[in-house]
Amino acid sequence: MSLDGQTEMSRLYKLAQTFNCFYLSGLKSPDCKPFFVEGYQVGLVRPDVMKQLLKYPEVFLVGSYGVELNPAFRDYEERSDQIDKVLRELRAENVFIALKGWRDECFEVKTDFLSKSLLKMDRCATCLFGIRNYGVDINGYVRHPVLGLCLWFQKRSPTKQTWPGKWDNMVGGGLSVGHGILETAHKEAMEEASVPLHLLNNLISAGCVSFFFESERGLFPNTEFVFDLELPVDFVPVNADGEVETFELLPAKECLEKILTADFKTTSTPVALDFLIRHGLVTPENEKEYLKIIELLHVPLQSIYGTCNIPINTNIKENGTSLHKISNN
Amino acid sequence: MSLDGQTEMSRLYKLAQTFNCFYLSGLKSPDCKPFFVEGYQVGLVRPDVMKQLLKYPEVFLVGSYGVELNPAFRDYEERSDQIDKVLRELRAENVFIALKGWRDECFEVKTDFLSKSLLKMDRCATCLFGIRNYGVDINGYVRHPVLGLCLWFQKRSPTKQTWPGKWDNMVGGGLSVGHGILETAHKEAMEEASVPLHLLNNLISAGCVSFFFESERGLFPNTEFVFDLELPVDFVPVNADGEVETFELLPAKECLEKILTADFKTTSTPVALDFLIRHGLVTPENEKEYLKIIELLHVPLQSIYGTCNIPINTNIKENGTSLHKISNN
Repeated sequence: MSLDGQTEMSRLYKLAQTFNCFYLSGLKSPDCKPFFVEGYQVGLVRPDVMKQLLKYPEVFLVGSYGVELNPAFRDYEERSDQIDKVLRELRAENVFIALKGWRDECFEVKTDFLSKSLLKMDRCATCLFGIRNYGVDINGYVRHPVLGLCLWFQKRSPTKQTWPGKWDNMVGGGLSVGHGILETAHKEAMEEASVPLHLLNNLISAGCVSFFFESERGLFPNTEFVFDLELPVDFVPVNADGEVETFELLPAKECLEKILTADFKTTSTPVALDFLIRHGLVTPENEKEYLKIIELLHVPLQSIYGTCNIPINTNIKENGTSLHKISNN
Repeated sequence: MSLDGQTEMSRLYKLAQTFNCFYLSGLKSPDCKPFFVEGYQVGLVRPDVMKQLLKYPEVFLVGSYGVELNPAFRDYEERSDQIDKVLRELRAENVFIALKGWRDECFEVKTDFLSKSLLKMDRCATCLFGIRNYGVDINGYVRHPVLGLCLWFQKRSPTKQTWPGKWDNMVGGGLSVGHGILETAHKEAMEEASVPLHLLNNLISAGCVSFFFESERGLFPNTEFVFDLELPVDFVPVNADGEVETFELLPAKECLEKILTADFKTTSTPVALDFLIRHGLVTPENEKEYLKIIELLHVPLQSIYGTCNIPINTNIKENGTSLHKISNN
């Protein structure tokens, strides 16, 4: 189980820093401001986005404390419609790369995974508002008689909107409006890899990873629900929805090398890395930054998003004194 | 795999709050002050401890910013000796419950698991200074043909200094001076449970848990290196060092019940809970606070202890202006 020296190992720590580039730097800068809906912080907005939102004063109240969705909007539908209208205009103006990936598939916007959704938003736009993003990933693995522990990886289709042609975990997908966690895992396993139902009975929930990434597209405070699926040696995944170019079975040690390359989707590496830690490939004996890496697989998004709320139905424009308290995230 | 309703489930979240009682409240209060050695924050000191340390001005510099070990001490040995002398006096005076558990077994005091040790201190005293504490735990489990996934728990000897008579993970121990992680795991597995060497080859490193507990004895910013060990159905652990009263094999679902009782050592529950999450017993479908619980199994001790340092060899008494920066933990 030992790996080839320390040079390789500190590369894993660098990787953990890369998928947490926003957690480790941007989050501490005052440039990004909280985004409030109904008095709750649901996101973070970068200056480039804030500048565009200023053009819609009837929808967004923009101040030094942050951005607030107009509290006059009455309900989920009105809030969703108003934001959708703005996003479609910004998309037509070609202002943001992120909006080029419009999918007509919405994510819920809420303060917490359990709480009632405040509005829905096309999934390509959530990164503009730094909305928390929840997904499901399946580590499809094989205990190979010759190669030992192996993982199936998929190569994403070259026509995908995001991360085209990059390597990825066997199965993964975002949690979109109206779908449960296990339901999404089953659905994606069947669509992406044609996993038959009798094998899905072996699916084991195995925790979650949380990290905070930033790219030119926006902010990604991501939480992935992680599942492990042991597969028979003779099972070969076959894509059914056109989103995967190919699959490859790799010995665990080669998986470690693969996630360290630029060919792997950065925001999918935490799930594979967590698998390799849980299954004894990356250990405190072979990885000197073991504790720091595990901490960076579980950054406290619950706390980051939970500590900056203002009471419901407080219009922060009318209540200047309370603003300063919430200006520093 | 589904569990019996939500009432039971939110008990797990309460448990996670219990073993993080200091993380969730004390840490945010200004009462506890950082403890500096050679300019690095290595701990946190409660007011009751600070009051006692005031009696040793030649050893501890106590100010509003925190407590500093006299920077005039030249090296590891002198620092260790000076603190040892104070601790033996305080022990003789019967001031602290914690010191009743004196063991003549030292833990290293360092800024980070990897860094050079600054001094050593009897393990019973580290909680007085809020020194980070590293241990090793082994989840000994069986895939039972009838009972399904089962875990071995140990009942601690009634004569143990800490948590006497409480239930605990099959094998666990602190990392004491001069011993490595895997070495400690092997040593404890043999001493506590008589696990033979050929079975120890199946030991799988499976991550770590980090939490921040407080009791009447002191502060416990603990990190446990976690190992899983699959055992044959016919293996029965036998204690060899007198520290265990008995062992019991329990189906995973009963383990969940057991760690929720007051009969289980609170600071050992995170390891068992992490096991039950990684092995699909506690899932996002049956535990509504799943994400919050996993976050509380990985609190950012690296960040908490890493952000409050002052440069080496700066005597903070001579440099009043820099103190305010470090006064708020």
